[in-house]
Parts: sequence; structure tokens; C-alpha cells
Amino acid sequence: MLQSIQKPYLLNKKTLNWREKLHEVIYEADTPAGKLFDIVLLFAILASIILVMLESVEDFDNKHHDFLYISEWIITIFFSIEYILRIISIKKPTKYIFSFYGIIDLLSTIPMYLTFFFVGTHSSLIALRALRLLRVFRILKVSRYIGESNQLIKALNASKAKIGVFLYFVLIICIILGSVMYFIEGADNGFTSIPRSIYWSIVTLTTVGYGDIAPQTALGQFIASITVIIGYAIIAIPTGIVSSEMTKKEVHLNTQSCSNCSYSGHKDDAEFCYHCGTKLN
Amino acid sequence: MLQSIQKPYLLNKKTLNWREKLHEVIYEADTPAGKLFDIVLLFAILASIILVMLESVEDFDNKHHDFLYISEWIITIFFSIEYILRIISIKKPTKYIFSFYGIIDLLSTIPMYLTFFFVGTHSSLIALRALRLLRVFRILKVSRYIGESNQLIKALNASKAKIGVFLYFVLIICIILGSVMYFIEGADNGFTSIPRSIYWSIVTLTTVGYGDIAPQTALGQFIASITVIIGYAIIAIPTGIVSSEMTKKEVHLNTQSCSNCSYSGHKDDAEFCYHCGTKLN
Amino acid sequence: MLQSIQKPYLLNKKTLNWREKLHEVIYEADTPAGKLFDIVLLFAILASIILVMLESVEDFDNKHHDFLYISEWIITIFFSIEYILRIISIKKPTKYIFSFYGIIDLLSTIPMYLTFFFVGTHSSLIALRALRLLRVFRILKVSRYIGESNQLIKALNASKAKIGVFLYFVLIICIILGSVMYFIEGADNGFTSIPRSIYWSIVTLTTVGYGDIAPQTALGQFIASITVIIGYAIIAIPTGIVSSEMTKKEVHLNTQSCSNCSYSGHKDDAEFCYHCGTKLN
Amino acid sequence: MLQSIQKPYLLNKKTLNWREKLHEVIYEADTPAGKLFDIVLLFAILASIILVMLESVEDFDNKHHDFLYISEWIITIFFSIEYILRIISIKKPTKYIFSFYGIIDLLSTIPMYLTFFFVGTHSSLIALRALRLLRVFRILKVSRYIGESNQLIKALNASKAKIGVFLYFVLIICIILGSVMYFIEGADNGFTSIPRSIYWSIVTLTTVGYGDIAPQTALGQFIASITVIIGYAIIAIPTGIVSSEMTKKEVHLNTQSCSNCSYSGHKDDAEFCYHCGTKLN
Repeated sequence: MLQSIQKPYLLNKKTLNWREKLHEVIYEADTPAGKLFDIVLLFAILASIILVMLESVEDFDNKHHDFLYISEWIITIFFSIEYILRIISIKKPTKYIFSFYGIIDLLSTIPMYLTFFFVGTHSSLIALRALRLLRVFRILKVSRYIGESNQLIKALNASKAKIGVFLYFVLIICIILGSVMYFIEGADNGFTSIPRSIYWSIVTLTTVGYGDIAPQTALGQFIASITVIIGYAIIAIPTGIVSSEMTKKEVHLNTQSCSNCSYSGHKDDAEFCYHCGTKLN
Repeated sequence: MLQSIQKPYLLNKKTLNWREKLHEVIYEADTPAGKLFDIVLLFAILASIILVMLESVEDFDNKHHDFLYISEWIITIFFSIEYILRIISIKKPTKYIFSFYGIIDLLSTIPMYLTFFFVGTHSSLIALRALRLLRVFRILKVSRYIGESNQLIKALNASKAKIGVFLYFVLIICIILGSVMYFIEGADNGFTSIPRSIYWSIVTLTTVGYGDIAPQTALGQFIASITVIIGYAIIAIPTGIVSSEMTKKEVHLNTQSCSNCSYSGHKDDAEFCYHCGTKLN
Repeated sequence: MLQSIQKPYLLNKKTLNWREKLHEVIYEADTPAGKLFDIVLLFAILASIILVMLESVEDFDNKHHDFLYISEWIITIFFSIEYILRIISIKKPTKYIFSFYGIIDLLSTIPMYLTFFFVGTHSSLIALRALRLLRVFRILKVSRYIGESNQLIKALNASKAKIGVFLYFVLIICIILGSVMYFIEGADNGFTSIPRSIYWSIVTLTTVGYGDIAPQTALGQFIASITVIIGYAIIAIPTGIVSSEMTKKEVHLNTQSCSNCSYSGHKDDAEFCYHCGTKLN
Repeated sequence: MLQSIQKPYLLNKKTLNWREKLHEVIYEADTPAGKLFDIVLLFAILASIILVMLESVEDFDNKHHDFLYISEWIITIFFSIEYILRIISIKKPTKYIFSFYGIIDLLSTIPMYLTFFFVGTHSSLIALRALRLLRVFRILKVSRYIGESNQLIKALNASKAKIGVFLYFVLIICIILGSVMYFIEGADNGFTSIPRSIYWSIVTLTTVGYGDIAPQTALGQFIASITVIIGYAIIAIPTGIVSSEMTKKEVHLNTQSCSNCSYSGHKDDAEFCYHCGTKLN
């Protein structure tokens, strides 16, 4: 019987084979060994990101090149072992390999091995740099450890369509505005092409305002002023969308109505009518 | 009888004359042909916008001038045919011609023909460029295919008056602030005239902050700091307006009106009128 | 009897003396003459503001100095007549003279007369410019004609205390941050004094970001990044304050409970219980 | 008996010893002497902050060095006396000394004394400047007098976890974006290292936009445009979090719990438990 098999599984962990033990350590976090594994991994990821950053700072790379190179290899080998263990310990390896985190985990180790094989050819230096940068995506592995993000993602998902329509309107305004400013200001004032003018209008309407391109003519400044004020007013829209979506979440009232007294506005998890006590269907 | 005429109309589409068939394809999207037409049109619009943009990039225009010129003519002729078909297939052509989209559709084709006639005269080059840019407004034709935008536009319409008053106050603050800064900073620090100072105060209050004009004197920086903090606090107002407008739907007041006193705005679970105490149905 | 005096006053306007007629035209807007007066005044104010602006544009002033000078005198005399008529037609002139709009109205005319008397002395040119600029405050006279602004001002008033506390915290963060950056970056990177560093931190935290002063050292950029992200998160606070204040206004439900069935959540203007129909006290 | 001891304490203040009197003046604000003490302290703090600021303005410091030096000593001695009195008058001095305000109060006085001892050594000038700047933290002492800040802090505390997750996502986006832009733009366009690129992406995504680093290539500007628009949409999230946290008070769920199943979160007008149908009291 299934019950008689599972019970010893829960009571006596020593009877688990090494594969099941590994799975528990790597994929779960409710045993001390599992927690330790997660924390070690977290620090390895963060150390790895910091290494990629330091490598890009020329002065630091020149002085400590060997240290960075050796550290990077240690972390790469560590991630490789983790990747192999994950494949071994799971029952359906293909499910893990082609999952989002499976691909991220693979991409975390491959670039370093590739740089090893191509190290002889000098001409591929730039391609190498790109490969190395892929290691930055290891930061995504951290997300595995964040449980509270679900609510945020839900709220975003719920308001996805409205935000999409909003962004479409912003884009239309930016394209028209960019074209108008390209004509008014012209190449002499930095608006050298329509795509560049649209870049300016996006940077302006979102209130970033670098200042690398700025209107110089009186008419251009007048139009920019109006744009900016419009942008100031419409920045309220996405906020309103998400706000109303999030306050809606807090009010767990549905539109179901009681079959006995026809009262509505019950909580989502209500089983009985709050007015007459009749069982809800 | 009307009923006996309409039924075959619905059942047997082959009895429709070519005009009615065209109308269905062009104006509706519930037949395969209608959907295909809409998708083709959508891609033509986007291709057209990309062409206008590429044309404005000087390097690209120099290399691929012929390609751009021919593509533009193909799209223009396509839009012309669409425009003519729309006029032919509708029962009241004037209603379409003078509608918003009718005017946009006409403006999408005319500029190219005008450039054809004026191509000989060199002096009208700038006017030509302006005409060509009108084609960018074709992007507005895309809006036809967005159904979900209604809710956004409703929320904006409902808070139109409040946002108007808000923008008026922002404008008053900007005019007064601009004048004060013109006096404090003066022409030497870039505040060459009051309109230009107002342009600066708008760019600052909306937190865009290009930095092409920035206060240089201690007093000017002090006033700018205060302004910016005020702007930071009042940016909340339009957001509050739209948010409250969007969450208002959540408030459980329905539009039912009392049969006795005709008061409306009752709570969803109200059984008696809040004004006269009559039982609501 | 009072009643017998007032009735003919309302029915037969011809019996009003010229003072009462004037009062109706100037202070009220429910007669055709009153509306016309308001519209003429509105255009005079806007024309006056545009004149002040154009005067500050050097090129325009050089070309059309006489036109600007004469126009300004016409408008000043018009405003002077309006001011005198307002004093004459009201029963308690002192009440108007010392009211907000009374002072604004006086300040709208005086500067021009003062420039007339001091025109001989060349050394007082700068003081003259300041006086002339006072005319910009005429824009405040427009507010008289905006009825819908009450709700906005009420919402602002209601959240005044909270926004004050919020601004105090922002200021404390800015002072401490400015001092820290003054020490880290120093005078060589543009942070020449603590007040200037505080100016930078205000401009940064409010996401204006001119770029006239920007951190140059790695540590400074690191601290600026953290600041900016904090600022990005706390910009939500004033918005939340005003939003919740404004949504509160829309929900006209009070906490009064029915004496018969003790249901609460009645609308503010409810006279009868929405649940049992009992008269509310 | 306790009661007979306390009553004369409340009625006859003259029987208090000098320690209890001091405690009342320093720690409480309900006697005229206590209020006066608080106001004097407030002005001393503000004066002290302005002194630190003025000291950092080189021109002012050169002219009025002696005035600044003497004023600073007067204020330091005043704060020292306050610190000693606070220790003497409290029953458990260690509780005050190691409290947040106790440490701030100590740090407010120490730097000046340290500059006195190290005044001979020229090489420690920079360390001195740092010590002096610590006095800016005196501004935190003002918070003691703000009672209304509790609600704001509560709302922030309640949405702490969500804002934390939000900031983590922003950081991940910034790290990945910074790395991508470092590869696309490269050192020639100002993106000299990944940390610097991340600094740029933070400044951009938060819509600050200094403009000290700005994308120069077409591809970089295209990615920057997309980033900025995403940032424009997600700025709504923290606002939504705080707004919903602040409006939650409006939601009509009370904390009453069912006597049968102990479920809580019932609607204000609920008569029966929504979970088990038991009549609520």
C-alpha cells in the first residue's frame, strides 16, 4: 500500500538513496543542509556578479588580472558541478534542462569554457567580451529565493493590457512629436533624424531629460513646454491603473449573490452568506 | 415583410452585391477576408512609418534613395486605392470623408502626390519636407484596431476638468516663477527673456531638468530648490485625480433610481431609498 | 417692511441706482453686461501678461518699443479705471481694498505709474525692471473666474499636515546627503559648499537631475545611485497621501448606524436606512 | 499606600526634588518651562546647522571666521550642558545614553572637542572636516518634536516588504541593462566600466537623467528609449503599493473574530460568519 511506503520515507531519512538525498538538498530548503546549500549558492552568485563588474574596471583588471581569472574559474567549476548535480538528482532531467532556470544555469557556465577554447585567436576578443558578459545574467538565479514577488507580478499581469494600450498612446505621441520637432529644429540643433528626434521626445515625455539634445529655437521650446506639461499630466495614468489594480486586490469581495437573501459583496473565500448565514454555492 | 428580406441576407452572403461585400471586408473584421485586410493594412502603415523615419537618416537616404522612393510610391498607391474603396463601398460617402479617420486617410496619400507636382522647383524643398512628414500621422490609423482603449479614454474624460484646473495652476506657478528667476539670474546666466525663463520653470517643475539652462547664483539655486520640492509634492495631484477616478468604479454605488423620489446613487445592497425610505425594487 | 422693499428690487432692475448697477456688472456674472465685463477683463489680463513677456525679449523690444509702451499704458489705465470702479461700487470699500484680490489689483497698476515718475534717473533701471515684473502677478486675477478649483484646494488642505511631514523628511535626507557628498566629492568636482551640495541632492532626489553638478568619483556615484533609488521609492508617498485623500472624498459613506437595525455605511446625505427604511437621526 | 503618595505628587509640585523638576522641563513639554526649553533647543539646532553650512562656503568663512568659530563653541557648550542635564535628570542614564537620540546628542558635541585637541597637527585637516560635518546630524534631533510622522512611518513599514521586492527587481533590471549598454556603447561613449554603466541605468530608469553619460550610438539610444518607457510604466508600482496601503483603512473589513471558528476579517455589516455560518455577536 502507498501509505505504508510513504510513512517510513518521512520518518527515517536514512533509508533514502543518495539521489533522493541530493534532490532534497538542492531543490528544497527545509533541511539544514538544504538551507546551507542555498546560502552558499547565493553568495557564489553575488561574488560572481561582482567579479564580472570588477573585470570591466580597467585599472582593477590590470592590477589583479590573475586573481580575477582564477576566482572566475573556481566559480565556474562550482556552477558546473551544481548544474550536473541538478540534472542527476531530478527524475526527469529534460524538464529541468529546458526550464527557464535550467537555461540560465547553463548560460552561467558555458561562456567561461568557450573563452578557454577560443583563447588563441586574437580577433575574437570582442565576441569573448560579449560571452563573458552573459555571466551577468546569473543574477536572475537569485529570483529563485524570493517568495514575496508573486503579488507584484500578479498586479502587473492584471494591468498588462491597460498598460499596453497606455504605452501605445505614449509611443504615438512620441512619434508625431519627434517628427514635428525634427522639422522645427532641424539638424543644426541636434535633431539630425526622425529616429533621433523620437529618442528625444521619449526622453522628454518620460521626464528623464538628459539634455544631450534640447530645443534651441523659441518655437521648439514652446512645443517642448507643452509636451512636458502633457507628459506631467499623463504620468498619472499608469499609476492610476496599477493603484486601482492593487487596491482591488485588498478588497476580497466578489459579485456572487446569496441564493436565500440575494445579498452580494461576499469575500472571495466566503462559504456562508454574511447576512443570513445560508451556505453559498 | 422586413423579416423575410433580412433573413436571407444573413444566411446567404452570395446574394450580397459587390458593394456590400466590399463594405464587409473593409469596415468589418468578422470575416476571414476582413481580418486579412486589416492585418495587411496594419503592416502597410507600420512599413510606411519606418520608411519616413529611414528617409530622415541622411546616410541611409543617400545609399538607398531609389529603394525608399519606389517603396513610398507603392505604399501611397496602396493607400489611395484603400481610400477610394472606402468611399465607394459606404452608403453615405460624405460621412466618411469628413470623419476623423477620413481626413487622416486623405492626408496619408496627398503629400506624396503634391511632391510629384512640385518636384521641379528647388526653392520649395523645405515645404516638401513638411508635406512628407505629414505621412507620419498615418500612425493614427492604427488606433482603429485597438478596442481596449475606451476605458482609458473614459477615465481621462471624467477627470478632464480637474486636470485642466491643475494644469492652469501649474502654468500660473511657472509664469510667476519664470519672471522671478529672470529678474534674479538675468541674461548672463542663460535666462535671457521671460518666455525662456518660463520654459526653464516648466522643464524644472515637471522634473524633466535638461540642464541647458540652470541657475548659477546662490539665490537662484535656493529658489529652484524650493520650486523643485513643491513640484515633487504636487506631482501627486494629477495621479490622485486619475487614481480616484479609476478606483471609483470599485465603490459599490449603483445607478438604480428610486421609483418614488427618483434619487439615484444607492449602495449595491440597499433595500430602501436613502432619501424617502421607499422600498427599492 | 424688508420684504416689500426687496421684492421690487428683484423684479424691476430699472429702479436700481447707478452704484448698484455697477456692482452687478463688476462683481457678478449673471447678467449679459456682467459676463461681457468679465470676458473683456480676462482678455486684458492675458494681453497684459503677453506684453510683459514680449518686453523681456530684447530683439522684439528694440523693434517694437513704442507699440509695447503705448499698449502697456492703455492696459494700465484700463486696470486703473476698473480698480476705481470696484472701490466706488462696493458698500464697504476697505473690505475690498485689503482683500487678496484688492491688493493684487492695486499691484497691477502701480508699477507703471512709478516708472513714469522715476524715468529720469538712469541708475534706478534695475529697480524699474523689478517693478515692471510685478505686473506678471496680474495672472492671479484670472483665478477669480475658475470655479472648479475648490475641490483641488480642499484635497490639498486636507493632506497639508501629512505633506508637510513628508517634505520635512525629504529635507532632512537632503541636508545629510548633501553634507556627505560635499565631503566625498569635494570642491574639485563641483560640490564647492554644503548649500550647493544640498541644492544638488534636492535636484537629484526629486528626479529633476540637471546635470550641472554630477558625482565624478566612484564612491560618489555609488551613493548617488542609492539615493536616487530611495527617492524613486519615496516619490510614492505624497502620491499615496493625495490619492487616499481624494478617493475618500468620492466615497460619501459615513459611520452613522441605524437605530433600528444598526446597519452602518450610510451615504452622507442619507435620510433613511438603506436596509430597513427607518428614518435616520 | 501608592495612591496616597502619588496624589500630593500631582497636586503639589513644589515637593518635587530638583531632579524630578529637571526631568519635567527637559523630557516633557506640558509645562511652560518645558515648552520654552524645547523651543530654545529647536532654534539652537537650526542655528547650528546654518553655521555648519556657512562654514563650508569659502568666501563667507574667510570673512567671518572668528564669528563662526565663537558661535560654534557657544552652541557646542550649550549642547554639552543639555547632554549632561539629560543624563543627570533621568533615573536610568544608560537607557538614554545608548538610545538613538542619546547617541545623536553625543555625536553633536564630541566633534568640536576633538578639533580642539588635534588643532596642532596640520596633516589631520581632512579628518577634522569630516568630524565637523558630523554636526549636521544634529538635524535629526528636530524629529523629536514631530508628532504627526507616525502615520507615514506606519504606512512605509506596512509596505516595506513589497517595496523591497520592487527595488530588487529594479536593481536586477539595472544590472542587466548596465552590462548590455557597456557592451553596446563601450568606453569611447562614456560607459567605461560595468559599475559606471549600472550607475547610468539607475539614473535613467529613475528618470533623473543627469546627462553626464548618455548613449551616442543609434542602437544604444534605441535600447535607452525602451528602458525609459518601461521605467515610466513601472514607476507606478511603488506608488500603487503605498496608495493601496493608505486607502486600505477605508475598506470596510473589521477585526472581529467568529466565536465558533475564530475566522476574522468580516465585513463591517456582516451578521453571520462567512466561513462557518455562525451568528456573529
